[in-house]
Amino acid sequence: MNAASQAIGVFDSGVGGLTVLRALVTALPDESWIYLGDTARLPYGTKSATTVQRYALRAAEVLVERGIKALVVACNTASAAALPALRERFAHLPVIGVVEPGAAAAVAASRTGRIAVIATESTVAGGAYVRAIAALQPDAQVQSLACQVFVALAEEGWIEGEAVLAAAHRYLDGWFATDAAHPDVLLLGCTHFPVLAPVLSQVLGPRVSVVDASAAVAQTLCRALAERGLLAPSGHQGSAPLLLATDGVARFARVGATFLGHALAAEHVQLVDL
Amino acid sequence: MNAASQAIGVFDSGVGGLTVLRALVTALPDESWIYLGDTARLPYGTKSATTVQRYALRAAEVLVERGIKALVVACNTASAAALPALRERFAHLPVIGVVEPGAAAAVAASRTGRIAVIATESTVAGGAYVRAIAALQPDAQVQSLACQVFVALAEEGWIEGEAVLAAAHRYLDGWFATDAAHPDVLLLGCTHFPVLAPVLSQVLGPRVSVVDASAAVAQTLCRALAERGLLAPSGHQGSAPLLLATDGVARFARVGATFLGHALAAEHVQLVDL
Repeated sequence: MNAASQAIGVFDSGVGGLTVLRALVTALPDESWIYLGDTARLPYGTKSATTVQRYALRAAEVLVERGIKALVVACNTASAAALPALRERFAHLPVIGVVEPGAAAAVAASRTGRIAVIATESTVAGGAYVRAIAALQPDAQVQSLACQVFVALAEEGWIEGEAVLAAAHRYLDGWFATDAAHPDVLLLGCTHFPVLAPVLSQVLGPRVSVVDASAAVAQTLCRALAERGLLAPSGHQGSAPLLLATDGVARFARVGATFLGHALAAEHVQLVDL
Repeated sequence: MNAASQAIGVFDSGVGGLTVLRALVTALPDESWIYLGDTARLPYGTKSATTVQRYALRAAEVLVERGIKALVVACNTASAAALPALRERFAHLPVIGVVEPGAAAAVAASRTGRIAVIATESTVAGGAYVRAIAALQPDAQVQSLACQVFVALAEEGWIEGEAVLAAAHRYLDGWFATDAAHPDVLLLGCTHFPVLAPVLSQVLGPRVSVVDASAAVAQTLCRALAERGLLAPSGHQGSAPLLLATDGVARFARVGATFLGHALAAEHVQLVDL
């Protein structure tokens, strides 16, 4: 089998990474995809870095056994904790995380260097985005805020309406008050949040760019594949993504539909054991 | 040591059970309390019944080793999965869960037999409240709804304001439409929800009783202690509850303050290992 015609593996602890998959499929429509959500063992955010590395390596093995030409770690926790270990173990594959592309996109979008990051509690506590932005632009002023209610709203499929608007105002109004020194970029540092981007843009107005890392991840992946001659030939017509989950396929399908942006039946999701 | 002067153990997978502790302390001010939140291994709701039983037995052992005269399982998942196992292992202790007292309180409060239960996804899926209400009143019409956004709002300390009101309307308006057949009781089947009771009562108005199981749990405990001559003597002046958590004491203190109803510093919470 020609390596270029192999699928690309995408891995997350749950359904959130489906927003990344959606952006990848849109940007690279000729590719084929296998997505693995390790729903039996989520949340990763509360687990130790060693455990997250172990889980990520096992999930990656399962994808590699099925034949993939690249691996996207569509999970903030695993990107922060396991990328070096994954790159060492699977040195023959491009392995792409979400933190660095997101940080680079935020730095590129900011004119003032004042960047706000919203994420889960554990991502904020880990500080990966703050470090990644500082590595690119040491004088950037980065603030980050945990927005757990956004996670619940996104999983409930409440991506518009009064509850989301009120939550967005409650989290963000203090930060983006109308003085001159407010951040000019809001980086979505959680894979659940892209579905809320339209509401967040509406609340923040045109003074603030809402940056979704997933487009940047797609660009990074495209470049990595092109460098190695691994891009699927144009017009190859990728098949529908293969979706795997380690538990709760009915919930995966229900919540995943919001994140993928189209209906998804439980029978479209295969249960796998790691 | 006189058995009656021993503490009462209260156990939950996390901080939610602190709403139950709060009601217990209010109802039984002469008693002393040890609360254990198994925060390192939450959520219980997604785990198998066997695993939840194992965790609950271990948590109860830790409390029993410290000397308790009764055990309250302030956790819906553990109440549904582990009460028989706990009662068998600790046959010398009154062991009280939250499901039966909550179901009994709802049945007592309903004039029409139409009862609505709100809970977490896993509690709704497990069906424990529907079964417990049916056992008490076989012709009751019970509907249940998972309200995961309420969990996130309560943990964020957002117990009033626009976001909570909007979420309450979005979940409940369909159920409590102004026809004659709406439920007349809303049973709070998640230990996080009592902090939202004022908003829920405001949204539903006087036609609907919002039933918080924790007062019923306190009554059940009081009766069990009295039957065994284990009530602390009146005026004994119970000490401040001892709070134990298996992980994340800072978060426990921050979120727990909302649920206990008063400020709580991280140094008030002891880290324990199971």
